[in-house]
Amino acid sequence: MEKYSPSIQRLISEFNSLPGIGPATAKNVAFHVLDMPQEKADGLIDAIKTARSSTCRCSICQNFTDSDPCSVCTDAMRDKSTVLVVESPKDVAIFERTHEYKGLYHVLHGVFDPLKNKSLEDTTISQLINRLSQNSEINEVIIATNQNAEGNATALYISRLVSPSGIKVTRIASGLPMGSNIENADDITLMSALNGRVNLS
Amino acid sequence: MEKYSPSIQRLISEFNSLPGIGPATAKNVAFHVLDMPQEKADGLIDAIKTARSSTCRCSICQNFTDSDPCSVCTDAMRDKSTVLVVESPKDVAIFERTHEYKGLYHVLHGVFDPLKNKSLEDTTISQLINRLSQNSEINEVIIATNQNAEGNATALYISRLVSPSGIKVTRIASGLPMGSNIENADDITLMSALNGRVNLS
Repeated sequence: MEKYSPSIQRLISEFNSLPGIGPATAKNVAFHVLDMPQEKADGLIDAIKTARSSTCRCSICQNFTDSDPCSVCTDAMRDKSTVLVVESPKDVAIFERTHEYKGLYHVLHGVFDPLKNKSLEDTTISQLINRLSQNSEINEVIIATNQNAEGNATALYISRLVSPSGIKVTRIASGLPMGSNIENADDITLMSALNGRVNLS
Repeated sequence: MEKYSPSIQRLISEFNSLPGIGPATAKNVAFHVLDMPQEKADGLIDAIKTARSSTCRCSICQNFTDSDPCSVCTDAMRDKSTVLVVESPKDVAIFERTHEYKGLYHVLHGVFDPLKNKSLEDTTISQLINRLSQNSEINEVIIATNQNAEGNATALYISRLVSPSGIKVTRIASGLPMGSNIENADDITLMSALNGRVNLS
Protein backbone atom coordinates (compact mmCIF):
# COMPACT_ATOMS: atom_id res chain seq x y z
CA MET A 1 0.00 0.00 0.00
CA GLU A 2 1.12 3.52 -0.77
CA LYS A 3 1.00 6.05 2.06
CA TYR A 4 -0.88 9.32 1.75
CA SER A 5 -1.72 12.11 4.16
CA PRO A 6 -4.81 11.36 6.32
CA SER A 7 -7.12 13.72 4.42
CA ILE A 8 -6.11 12.23 1.05
CA GLN A 9 -6.43 8.70 2.45
CA ARG A 10 -9.93 9.53 3.68
CA LEU A 11 -10.92 10.94 0.28
CA ILE A 12 -9.65 7.76 -1.45
CA SER A 13 -11.62 5.59 1.02
CA GLU A 14 -14.79 7.57 0.44
CA PHE A 15 -14.58 7.09 -3.34
CA ASN A 16 -13.59 3.44 -2.88
CA SER A 17 -16.80 2.86 -0.90
CA LEU A 18 -18.95 3.84 -3.92
CA PRO A 19 -20.29 1.02 -6.13
CA GLY A 20 -18.08 -0.01 -9.07
CA ILE A 21 -15.12 2.11 -7.94
CA GLY A 22 -12.09 -0.03 -7.05
CA PRO A 23 -8.94 1.09 -5.21
CA ALA A 24 -7.10 2.20 -8.38
CA THR A 25 -9.98 4.29 -9.74
CA ALA A 26 -10.63 5.72 -6.25
CA LYS A 27 -7.01 6.90 -6.12
CA ASN A 28 -7.18 8.42 -9.61
CA VAL A 29 -10.46 10.16 -8.83
CA ALA A 30 -9.15 11.50 -5.50
CA PHE A 31 -6.05 13.04 -7.08
CA HIS A 32 -8.15 14.36 -9.95
CA VAL A 33 -10.45 16.05 -7.42
CA LEU A 34 -7.44 17.53 -5.58
CA ASP A 35 -6.03 18.90 -8.84
CA MET A 36 -9.36 20.34 -10.11
CA PRO A 37 -9.90 24.11 -10.34
CA GLN A 38 -12.00 25.36 -7.40
CA GLU A 39 -15.14 25.94 -9.51
CA LYS A 40 -15.11 22.35 -10.78
CA ALA A 41 -14.83 20.98 -7.22
CA ASP A 42 -17.64 23.29 -6.10
CA GLY A 43 -19.70 22.04 -9.07
CA LEU A 44 -19.26 18.43 -8.01
CA ILE A 45 -20.21 19.16 -4.38
CA ASP A 46 -23.17 21.27 -5.50
CA ALA A 47 -24.41 18.53 -7.86
CA ILE A 48 -24.47 16.06 -4.96
CA LYS A 49 -26.23 18.52 -2.63
CA THR A 50 -28.74 19.71 -5.26
CA ALA A 51 -29.62 16.22 -6.44
CA ARG A 52 -30.17 15.05 -2.87
CA SER A 53 -32.17 18.11 -1.78
CA SER A 54 -34.32 18.48 -4.90
CA THR A 55 -35.00 14.75 -5.27
CA CYS A 56 -37.67 13.07 -3.17
CA ARG A 57 -39.62 9.83 -3.42
CA CYS A 58 -42.94 10.04 -5.24
CA SER A 59 -45.62 9.45 -2.60
CA ILE A 60 -47.46 7.13 -5.00
CA CYS A 61 -44.84 5.01 -6.83
CA GLN A 62 -41.76 5.72 -4.60
CA ASN A 63 -39.62 6.56 -7.66
CA PHE A 64 -37.14 9.44 -7.32
CA THR A 65 -38.72 12.66 -8.58
CA ASP A 66 -38.22 16.43 -8.57
CA SER A 67 -41.98 16.98 -8.04
CA ASP A 68 -44.39 14.84 -6.01
CA PRO A 69 -46.35 12.99 -7.43
CA CYS A 70 -43.95 12.16 -10.26
CA SER A 71 -44.52 12.78 -13.98
CA VAL A 72 -45.51 9.15 -14.63
CA CYS A 73 -48.09 8.99 -11.83
CA THR A 74 -49.67 12.30 -12.96
CA ASP A 75 -49.61 11.46 -16.70
CA ALA A 76 -53.25 11.15 -17.83
CA MET A 77 -52.19 9.08 -20.84
CA ARG A 78 -50.77 6.20 -18.75
CA ASP A 79 -52.71 2.98 -18.23
CA LYS A 80 -53.77 3.18 -14.55
CA SER A 81 -54.73 -0.50 -14.37
CA THR A 82 -51.19 -1.94 -14.38
CA VAL A 83 -48.35 -1.51 -11.90
CA LEU A 84 -44.84 -2.69 -12.78
CA VAL A 85 -42.85 -3.43 -9.62
CA VAL A 86 -39.08 -2.81 -9.92
CA GLU A 87 -36.15 -2.91 -7.51
CA SER A 88 -34.58 0.46 -8.26
CA PRO A 89 -35.32 3.89 -9.81
CA LYS A 90 -32.76 2.99 -12.50
CA ASP A 91 -35.04 0.16 -13.63
CA VAL A 92 -37.91 2.60 -14.25
CA ALA A 93 -35.68 4.63 -16.59
CA ILE A 94 -34.71 1.43 -18.42
CA PHE A 95 -38.34 0.35 -18.99
CA GLU A 96 -39.24 3.93 -20.04
CA ARG A 97 -36.44 3.81 -22.60
CA THR A 98 -38.23 0.99 -24.45
CA HIS A 99 -41.33 3.20 -24.96
CA GLU A 100 -43.36 -0.05 -24.83
CA TYR A 101 -44.74 -0.07 -21.31
CA LYS A 102 -47.58 2.40 -20.77
CA GLY A 103 -48.69 1.53 -17.22
CA LEU A 104 -47.57 2.75 -13.79
CA TYR A 105 -44.60 1.73 -11.62
CA HIS A 106 -43.77 0.88 -8.04
CA VAL A 107 -40.13 1.16 -6.90
CA LEU A 108 -39.14 -1.19 -4.05
CA HIS A 109 -35.77 0.48 -3.34
CA GLY A 110 -34.30 -2.92 -2.58
CA VAL A 111 -35.18 -6.58 -2.25
CA PHE A 112 -35.24 -9.14 0.51
CA ASP A 113 -31.57 -10.09 0.95
CA PRO A 114 -30.61 -11.70 4.27
CA LEU A 115 -26.92 -11.85 3.25
CA LYS A 116 -26.81 -8.05 2.92
CA ASN A 117 -28.94 -7.64 6.06
CA LYS A 118 -31.83 -6.33 3.94
CA SER A 119 -35.19 -7.31 5.35
CA LEU A 120 -38.59 -6.75 3.73
CA GLU A 121 -39.02 -3.65 5.91
CA ASP A 122 -36.15 -2.03 3.98
CA THR A 123 -38.31 -2.13 0.84
CA THR A 124 -41.50 -0.23 -0.01
CA ILE A 125 -43.67 -3.38 -0.10
CA SER A 126 -45.99 -2.02 2.61
CA GLN A 127 -46.53 1.16 0.56
CA LEU A 128 -47.39 -1.05 -2.44
CA ILE A 129 -49.97 -3.01 -0.42
CA ASN A 130 -51.50 0.28 0.86
CA ARG A 131 -51.60 1.67 -2.65
CA LEU A 132 -53.38 -1.42 -4.01
CA SER A 133 -55.93 -1.41 -1.18
CA GLN A 134 -56.77 2.29 -1.77
CA ASN A 135 -56.92 2.12 -5.56
CA SER A 136 -59.57 0.01 -7.24
CA GLU A 137 -58.39 0.83 -10.78
CA ILE A 138 -55.33 -1.45 -10.56
CA ASN A 139 -56.02 -4.97 -11.79
CA GLU A 140 -52.53 -6.32 -12.54
CA VAL A 141 -49.22 -6.19 -10.72
CA ILE A 142 -46.23 -7.19 -12.90
CA ILE A 143 -43.17 -8.06 -10.82
CA ALA A 144 -39.92 -7.13 -12.57
CA THR A 145 -37.38 -7.72 -9.82
CA ASN A 146 -34.07 -9.12 -11.05
CA GLN A 147 -33.84 -12.79 -12.06
CA ASN A 148 -31.84 -13.99 -9.07
CA ALA A 149 -32.53 -15.63 -5.71
CA GLU A 150 -33.31 -12.35 -3.92
CA GLY A 151 -35.46 -11.02 -6.77
CA ASN A 152 -37.41 -14.27 -6.98
CA ALA A 153 -37.95 -14.52 -3.21
CA THR A 154 -39.23 -10.94 -3.14
CA ALA A 155 -41.51 -11.64 -6.13
CA LEU A 156 -42.97 -14.69 -4.39
CA TYR A 157 -43.55 -12.76 -1.17
CA ILE A 158 -45.34 -9.90 -2.96
CA SER A 159 -47.43 -12.37 -4.91
CA ARG A 160 -48.60 -14.05 -1.67
CA LEU A 161 -49.53 -10.70 -0.13
CA VAL A 162 -51.36 -9.37 -3.19
CA SER A 163 -53.12 -12.47 -4.57
CA PRO A 164 -55.86 -12.70 -1.85
CA SER A 165 -57.13 -9.26 -3.00
CA GLY A 166 -58.00 -10.75 -6.39
CA ILE A 167 -55.52 -8.56 -8.26
CA LYS A 168 -53.65 -10.52 -10.94
CA VAL A 169 -49.92 -10.91 -10.13
CA THR A 170 -47.48 -11.72 -12.96
CA ARG A 171 -43.71 -12.02 -13.25
CA ILE A 172 -41.68 -10.89 -16.29
CA ALA A 173 -40.54 -13.86 -18.38
CA SER A 174 -37.21 -15.55 -17.84
CA GLY A 175 -35.47 -17.17 -20.80
CA LEU A 176 -32.82 -16.71 -23.44
CA PRO A 177 -32.06 -13.08 -24.39
CA MET A 178 -33.05 -12.11 -27.94
CA GLY A 179 -30.20 -12.78 -30.37
CA SER A 180 -28.45 -15.23 -28.04
CA ASN A 181 -27.38 -18.79 -28.82
CA ILE A 182 -28.41 -21.97 -26.98
CA GLU A 183 -24.70 -22.80 -26.89
CA ASN A 184 -23.84 -19.80 -24.73
CA ALA A 185 -26.76 -20.03 -22.31
CA ASP A 186 -26.21 -21.25 -18.76
CA ASP A 187 -28.11 -24.29 -17.45
CA ILE A 188 -30.48 -22.38 -15.17
CA THR A 189 -31.51 -20.01 -17.98
CA LEU A 190 -32.04 -22.99 -20.32
CA MET A 191 -34.22 -24.79 -17.76
CA SER A 192 -36.16 -21.62 -17.14
CA ALA A 193 -36.67 -21.06 -20.89
CA LEU A 194 -37.86 -24.67 -21.25
CA ASN A 195 -40.30 -24.45 -18.35
CA GLY A 196 -41.63 -21.13 -19.59
CA ARG A 197 -42.26 -22.39 -23.15
CA VAL A 198 -45.18 -20.74 -24.97
CA ASN A 199 -47.65 -22.13 -27.50
CA LEU A 200 -46.92 -21.33 -31.13
CA SER A 201 -49.73 -23.36 -32.72
CA MET B 1 -30.51 6.93 -23.35
CA GLU B 2 -32.61 6.75 -20.25
CA LYS B 3 -34.23 9.98 -19.07
CA TYR B 4 -33.76 11.30 -15.55
CA SER B 5 -34.75 14.50 -13.79
CA PRO B 6 -32.33 17.42 -14.45
CA SER B 7 -30.67 17.25 -11.01
CA ILE B 8 -30.09 13.48 -11.29
CA GLN B 9 -28.82 13.92 -14.86
CA ARG B 10 -26.38 16.57 -13.66
CA LEU B 11 -25.14 14.33 -10.85
CA ILE B 12 -24.56 11.47 -13.32
CA SER B 13 -22.65 13.83 -15.67
CA GLU B 14 -20.46 15.08 -12.82
CA PHE B 15 -19.45 11.54 -11.86
CA ASN B 16 -19.03 10.59 -15.54
CA SER B 17 -16.51 13.43 -15.93
CA LEU B 18 -14.18 11.87 -13.33
CA PRO B 19 -11.30 9.69 -14.62
CA GLY B 20 -12.07 5.96 -15.00
CA ILE B 21 -15.80 6.37 -14.36
CA GLY B 22 -17.88 5.42 -17.40
CA PRO B 23 -21.59 6.11 -17.98
CA ALA B 24 -22.78 2.88 -16.27
CA THR B 25 -20.68 3.36 -13.13
CA ALA B 26 -21.61 7.07 -13.03
CA LYS B 27 -25.31 6.09 -13.03
CA ASN B 28 -24.80 3.48 -10.28
CA VAL B 29 -22.79 5.91 -8.16
CA ALA B 30 -25.37 8.69 -8.61
CA PHE B 31 -28.27 6.51 -7.48
CA HIS B 32 -26.14 5.14 -4.64
CA VAL B 33 -25.45 8.72 -3.50
CA LEU B 34 -29.17 9.56 -3.70
CA ASP B 35 -30.06 6.50 -1.62
CA MET B 36 -27.33 7.05 1.03
CA PRO B 37 -28.23 8.07 4.59
CA GLN B 38 -27.68 11.81 5.13
CA GLU B 39 -24.57 11.32 7.30
CA LYS B 40 -22.87 9.23 4.60
CA ALA B 41 -23.53 11.90 1.96
CA ASP B 42 -22.26 14.60 4.33
CA GLY B 43 -19.16 12.46 4.92
CA LEU B 44 -18.43 12.25 1.18
CA ILE B 45 -18.85 16.01 0.71
CA ASP B 46 -16.76 16.75 3.80
CA ALA B 47 -13.98 14.40 2.63
CA ILE B 48 -13.75 16.33 -0.66
CA LYS B 49 -13.77 19.73 1.10
CA THR B 50 -11.31 18.71 3.84
CA ALA B 51 -8.86 17.05 1.45
CA ARG B 52 -8.89 20.12 -0.80
CA SER B 53 -8.61 22.67 2.02
CA SER B 54 -6.01 20.84 4.12
CA THR B 55 -3.85 19.78 1.17
CA CYS B 56 -1.39 22.22 -0.38
CA ARG B 57 1.65 21.87 -2.61
CA CYS B 58 4.99 21.57 -0.82
CA SER B 59 6.90 24.77 -1.63
CA ILE B 60 10.06 22.73 -2.26
CA CYS B 61 9.04 19.55 -4.13
CA GLN B 62 5.48 20.53 -5.18
CA ASN B 63 4.04 17.24 -3.86
CA PHE B 64 0.63 17.37 -2.13
CA THR B 65 1.12 17.72 1.61
CA ASP B 66 -0.79 18.56 4.81
CA SER B 67 2.17 20.61 6.11
CA ASP B 68 4.61 22.74 4.09
CA PRO B 69 7.43 21.73 3.56
CA CYS B 70 6.40 18.09 3.27
CA SER B 71 7.62 15.19 5.40
CA VAL B 72 10.07 14.00 2.72
CA CYS B 73 11.68 17.42 2.20
CA THR B 74 12.09 17.93 5.99
CA ASP B 75 13.34 14.38 6.67
CA ALA B 76 16.98 14.66 7.83
CA MET B 77 17.64 11.04 6.85
CA ARG B 78 16.97 11.57 3.12
CA ASP B 79 19.78 11.90 0.63
CA LYS B 80 19.67 15.60 -0.32
CA SER B 81 21.91 15.14 -3.37
CA THR B 82 19.35 13.39 -5.62
CA VAL B 83 16.01 14.62 -6.96
CA LEU B 84 13.59 12.19 -8.62
CA VAL B 85 11.30 14.04 -11.02
CA VAL B 86 7.80 12.50 -11.40
CA GLU B 87 4.62 13.50 -13.21
CA SER B 88 2.12 13.14 -10.39
CA PRO B 89 1.85 12.98 -6.56
CA LYS B 90 0.63 9.38 -7.00
CA ASP B 91 4.04 8.49 -8.46
CA VAL B 92 5.80 9.69 -5.27
CA ALA B 93 3.66 7.33 -3.19
CA ILE B 94 4.53 4.47 -5.57
CA PHE B 95 8.30 5.06 -5.30
CA GLU B 96 7.96 5.45 -1.51
CA ARG B 97 6.20 2.07 -1.38
CA THR B 98 9.35 0.37 -2.68
CA HIS B 99 11.39 1.68 0.32
CA GLU B 100 14.41 1.70 -2.06
CA TYR B 101 14.70 5.33 -3.07
CA LYS B 102 16.13 7.55 -0.30
CA GLY B 103 16.52 10.87 -2.14
CA LEU B 104 14.17 13.80 -2.70
CA TYR B 105 11.36 14.32 -5.22
CA HIS B 106 10.02 16.93 -7.58
CA VAL B 107 6.40 16.63 -8.77
CA LEU B 108 5.70 18.14 -12.21
CA HIS B 109 1.87 17.96 -11.94
CA GLY B 110 1.71 17.15 -15.63
CA VAL B 111 3.81 16.78 -18.75
CA PHE B 112 4.14 18.58 -22.05
CA ASP B 113 1.15 17.31 -24.07
CA PRO B 114 0.07 19.47 -27.03
CA LEU B 115 -2.89 17.12 -27.77
CA LYS B 116 -4.36 17.83 -24.35
CA ASN B 117 -3.43 21.53 -24.60
CA LYS B 118 -0.85 21.09 -21.83
CA SER B 119 2.15 23.34 -22.32
CA LEU B 120 5.35 23.33 -20.27
CA GLU B 121 3.94 26.26 -18.25
CA ASP B 122 1.29 23.89 -16.87
CA THR B 123 4.04 21.90 -15.17
CA THR B 124 6.36 22.88 -12.29
CA ILE B 125 9.51 22.76 -14.44
CA SER B 126 10.34 26.42 -13.66
CA GLN B 127 10.10 25.66 -9.91
CA LEU B 128 12.51 22.74 -10.48
CA ILE B 129 15.03 24.98 -12.26
CA ASN B 130 14.77 27.58 -9.47
CA ARG B 131 15.22 24.89 -6.85
CA LEU B 132 18.35 23.53 -8.56
CA SER B 133 19.87 27.00 -8.96
CA GLN B 134 19.33 27.81 -5.25
CA ASN B 135 20.52 24.48 -3.88
CA SER B 136 24.12 23.43 -4.38
CA GLU B 137 23.68 20.06 -2.60
CA ILE B 138 21.81 18.48 -5.53
CA ASN B 139 24.12 16.70 -7.97
CA GLU B 140 21.74 14.34 -9.81
CA VAL B 141 18.28 14.74 -11.32
CA ILE B 142 16.60 11.40 -12.17
CA ILE B 143 13.69 11.84 -14.55
CA ALA B 144 10.91 9.31 -13.96
CA THR B 145 8.18 10.63 -16.23
CA ASN B 146 6.10 7.89 -17.90
CA GLN B 147 7.59 5.92 -20.80
CA ASN B 148 5.51 7.50 -23.58
CA ALA B 149 5.88 10.29 -26.13
CA GLU B 150 4.84 13.05 -23.71
CA GLY B 151 6.95 11.69 -20.85
CA ASN B 152 10.00 11.36 -23.10
CA ALA B 153 9.59 14.85 -24.63
CA THR B 154 9.32 16.35 -21.15
CA ALA B 155 12.38 14.39 -19.98
CA LEU B 156 14.40 15.65 -22.94
CA TYR B 157 13.32 19.24 -22.33
CA ILE B 158 14.26 19.11 -18.62
CA SER B 159 17.60 17.50 -19.49
CA ARG B 160 18.42 20.37 -21.90
CA LEU B 161 17.53 22.98 -19.28
CA VAL B 162 19.43 21.31 -16.45
CA SER B 163 22.56 19.95 -18.18
CA PRO B 164 24.34 23.33 -18.65
CA SER B 165 24.44 23.74 -14.85
CA GLY B 166 26.69 20.67 -14.61
CA ILE B 167 24.12 18.65 -12.62
CA LYS B 168 23.94 15.04 -13.84
CA VAL B 169 20.58 14.23 -15.50
CA THR B 170 19.48 10.59 -15.79
CA ARG B 171 16.35 8.82 -16.97
CA ILE B 172 14.89 5.65 -15.35
CA ALA B 173 15.57 2.57 -17.48
CA SER B 174 13.11 1.31 -20.05
CA GLY B 175 12.95 -2.42 -20.77
CA LEU B 176 11.08 -5.63 -20.05
CA PRO B 177 9.25 -5.73 -16.71
CA MET B 178 10.68 -8.23 -14.19
CA GLY B 179 9.01 -11.63 -14.58
CA SER B 180 7.80 -10.92 -18.11
CA ASN B 181 8.40 -13.02 -21.24
CA ILE B 182 10.07 -11.90 -24.46
CA GLU B 183 7.07 -13.44 -26.24
CA ASN B 184 4.62 -11.00 -24.69
CA ALA B 185 6.70 -7.81 -25.03
CA ASP B 186 5.77 -5.21 -27.65
CA ASP B 187 8.29 -4.21 -30.33
CA ILE B 188 9.08 -0.78 -28.91
CA THR B 189 9.81 -2.20 -25.44
CA LEU B 190 12.00 -4.92 -27.01
CA MET B 191 13.97 -2.35 -29.00
CA SER B 192 14.34 -0.17 -25.92
CA ALA B 193 15.52 -3.15 -23.84
CA LEU B 194 18.05 -4.04 -26.55
CA ASN B 195 19.39 -0.48 -26.82
CA GLY B 196 19.61 -0.16 -23.05
CA ARG B 197 21.53 -3.43 -22.58
CA VAL B 198 23.95 -3.51 -19.64
CA ASN B 199 27.32 -5.21 -19.21
CA LEU B 200 27.27 -8.48 -17.28
CA SER B 201 30.96 -9.38 -17.68
